[in-house]
Amino acid sequence: MPRYTEMTTGQLREELARLQNAFEEKAAEGLKLDMSRGKPSLEQLDLSNGMLDVLDSSHTSYIAENGIDVRNYGCLEGIPEARRLFADILGIEADEVFICGNSSLNMMYDTVSRGMLFGFPGGEKPWGQQQKIRFLCPAPGYDRHFAICEVFGIQMITVPMTAEGPDMNLVESWVNNDETVKGIWCVPQYSNPGGITYSDETVRRFANLKPAAGDFRIFWDNAYCVHHVTETPDHLLNLMDECKKVGTEDMVIMFTSTSKISFSGAGVAAIGCSRRNMEALKKVIPMQIISFDKLNQIRHVRFFKDVEGIHEHMEKHRELLYPRFQMVLDTFERELGDMYVPELRHSRANETGVHWTHPNGGYFISVDTMDGCAARTVELCKQAGVTLTGAGATFPYGKDPHDRNIRIAPSYPSLEELQKASDIFCLCVKLATVEKLLKP
Amino acid sequence: MPRYTEMTTGQLREELARLQNAFEEKAAEGLKLDMSRGKPSLEQLDLSNGMLDVLDSSHTSYIAENGIDVRNYGCLEGIPEARRLFADILGIEADEVFICGNSSLNMMYDTVSRGMLFGFPGGEKPWGQQQKIRFLCPAPGYDRHFAICEVFGIQMITVPMTAEGPDMNLVESWVNNDETVKGIWCVPQYSNPGGITYSDETVRRFANLKPAAGDFRIFWDNAYCVHHVTETPDHLLNLMDECKKVGTEDMVIMFTSTSKISFSGAGVAAIGCSRRNMEALKKVIPMQIISFDKLNQIRHVRFFKDVEGIHEHMEKHRELLYPRFQMVLDTFERELGDMYVPELRHSRANETGVHWTHPNGGYFISVDTMDGCAARTVELCKQAGVTLTGAGATFPYGKDPHDRNIRIAPSYPSLEELQKASDIFCLCVKLATVEKLLKP
Repeated sequence: MPRYTEMTTGQLREELARLQNAFEEKAAEGLKLDMSRGKPSLEQLDLSNGMLDVLDSSHTSYIAENGIDVRNYGCLEGIPEARRLFADILGIEADEVFICGNSSLNMMYDTVSRGMLFGFPGGEKPWGQQQKIRFLCPAPGYDRHFAICEVFGIQMITVPMTAEGPDMNLVESWVNNDETVKGIWCVPQYSNPGGITYSDETVRRFANLKPAAGDFRIFWDNAYCVHHVTETPDHLLNLMDECKKVGTEDMVIMFTSTSKISFSGAGVAAIGCSRRNMEALKKVIPMQIISFDKLNQIRHVRFFKDVEGIHEHMEKHRELLYPRFQMVLDTFERELGDMYVPELRHSRANETGVHWTHPNGGYFISVDTMDGCAARTVELCKQAGVTLTGAGATFPYGKDPHDRNIRIAPSYPSLEELQKASDIFCLCVKLATVEKLLKP
Repeated sequence: MPRYTEMTTGQLREELARLQNAFEEKAAEGLKLDMSRGKPSLEQLDLSNGMLDVLDSSHTSYIAENGIDVRNYGCLEGIPEARRLFADILGIEADEVFICGNSSLNMMYDTVSRGMLFGFPGGEKPWGQQQKIRFLCPAPGYDRHFAICEVFGIQMITVPMTAEGPDMNLVESWVNNDETVKGIWCVPQYSNPGGITYSDETVRRFANLKPAAGDFRIFWDNAYCVHHVTETPDHLLNLMDECKKVGTEDMVIMFTSTSKISFSGAGVAAIGCSRRNMEALKKVIPMQIISFDKLNQIRHVRFFKDVEGIHEHMEKHRELLYPRFQMVLDTFERELGDMYVPELRHSRANETGVHWTHPNGGYFISVDTMDGCAARTVELCKQAGVTLTGAGATFPYGKDPHDRNIRIAPSYPSLEELQKASDIFCLCVKLATVEKLLKP
């Protein structure tokens, strides 16, 4: 069978009828499958069940290594053993870690909010009192980062992602020349959704930015720093180390959490930042809260012991995730292999086929359909009972300029469900493509 | 011995010398005692140790009654059984409860922040986009409420507390006539620090407010709703019931937490509000967080079972708190009884003696020294090794107009420490008083 782009109108019409029949059959099955959000599977959650009873009612359960009673108020920045654990995860020092609640997204929201209200060291006044505030948004990216900018009325500038991370020529040009640019959202390892790990060169260029704004901050959301899927993990150069070499460490705020290590929603989140930023945090966080949940901190430390324990645990996650990612990729290869295009450029239209990523970690596979087919594919999937992240969600303001990016989250469904969902997805991609090619 | 106010200068000089000697002796002991914050004692925390292993790794531990797996994302507003428990605590319906993180203070901060960013139903635009925003602050009150206003640049108007709650003539006059008044901070039961429970009349007058501003909200911080100290607890009329009678339920946002029921910092906090406010919350909270810690919610429900379980548990707290409060009050009676004045009015100077409260619940005893003696008393206590809440902290902007209110937190120290600390406190009150009387 020739590729769709090489078919005659007659051939396309025949193919359309065939696909429509197949689609109607699928839709009639009344399936209800969800590949929309990066949720761990039940088997993954089971891996941490030991944490549910790692504490007991004995005294040793709730006394931290510095002697404080974690059941009471105090130790706002977190217990020392938890700060050390997160420091090792992020590759920074323990006194550069502030342990917060259960959600790194909440920490990012709060950090932007603090920027608006109080500003950051190096700035003349709070962001909220400055005329115009802008953030760079590498895209495709994480919809909830962009939502935070919308909430606070921060103007978003899209920066295309490349295979090495955000387009650094653009990033440098904006950050180093425009003092209204106050931040950039980065998921530097196994980016959401592209699965890209920033190259060493990219990380070094980040460390060597010379921002026009003294209160510019890199929001380094290292959500997937230990979340490998294949046996050939990516390696991310440590941004804080690189910054320290050139004295730019105040420019970085790191975030991570155990939401996809232990329990989603019942994990522990942490901020990593320079001592100067840390001092500023210590002044403003008490306005907001008296104490974070230190019992959950000690639960995590007792269960994982140390960063080695985390890595061993993540290997078990990997063993559960790998077959799911592989099944989706195998299905794509089988069903859409003829249409595969190895590389797309943001600046160019895609009128020939479908691209998808082969990530070594993270939670997503990113698909680019032919231009103008993403929203229709997502709509068709919905009709056939498969929920996907909304088309456009991976771009600022929910607007994908090419209408082609779709984020696939393979972690939650069972293998059986995933097979069905992937089959339907491929069918819908084909149907949307043929529909498009038949349009006058 | 005559009362200080009746002494001659000569007698006062003699007394000063005697007190100074006693003070120097105490100071030389190098004590380190803390009556500054409402922290539960270790014995109180022990009461909830059973919660530390109430869950185990079995399936029943983490499946809520609606079948959802509390280890994963989802159920943002809280699991049904936890919403019901908090509904019973607050005397409202389960669908009027939003369960949040561990800290009700954080919920209040976030609620004010949302008012600034998004506004509330009934308002034309967000508070932050309105020219001038003011809050009524019944005082003496809770310092961290006032700090939230300062953070957001909200102008504070002091409203004097009476024995029945805030001066409602003033409250009505402001709220019903001034549309820049957007909120009022209330701790309606066992107020912080006065220990006052609002009278039925006060609650009814709150329910019948007719705010000039459609986006006015009562911040009803019911932190001590089940926190009795004596065997003759106060009863608070239910504001939501009263509001429903007259259709004003959108005006109220209730807050509570288990910080002083289970563990400080590792408890669960909840918001109670009308269904209209709830719908608004459900729209904006997802911008900030994906999921609160539902494992901690289920831990609380499994441990306390129901509101009866809470009341039984609080009786055990009461048995630990009562002797502490009583020891402080007995010491005051013995050492300062001669100076006791039964009632003070906010508008009048106190030049005769010392007033203190006899609360039936909550975490504080509130002391009013003679005018101009509070800061000096706190300073003297500090020199003798006793840390108190800063003088002035109980008033907006940290400024007590009479310099007389001091908040005493008797819960945390042991009985032995508390006796020492109370003795020193009384000595310092006397010393500050005599110093004052000797000033030209």
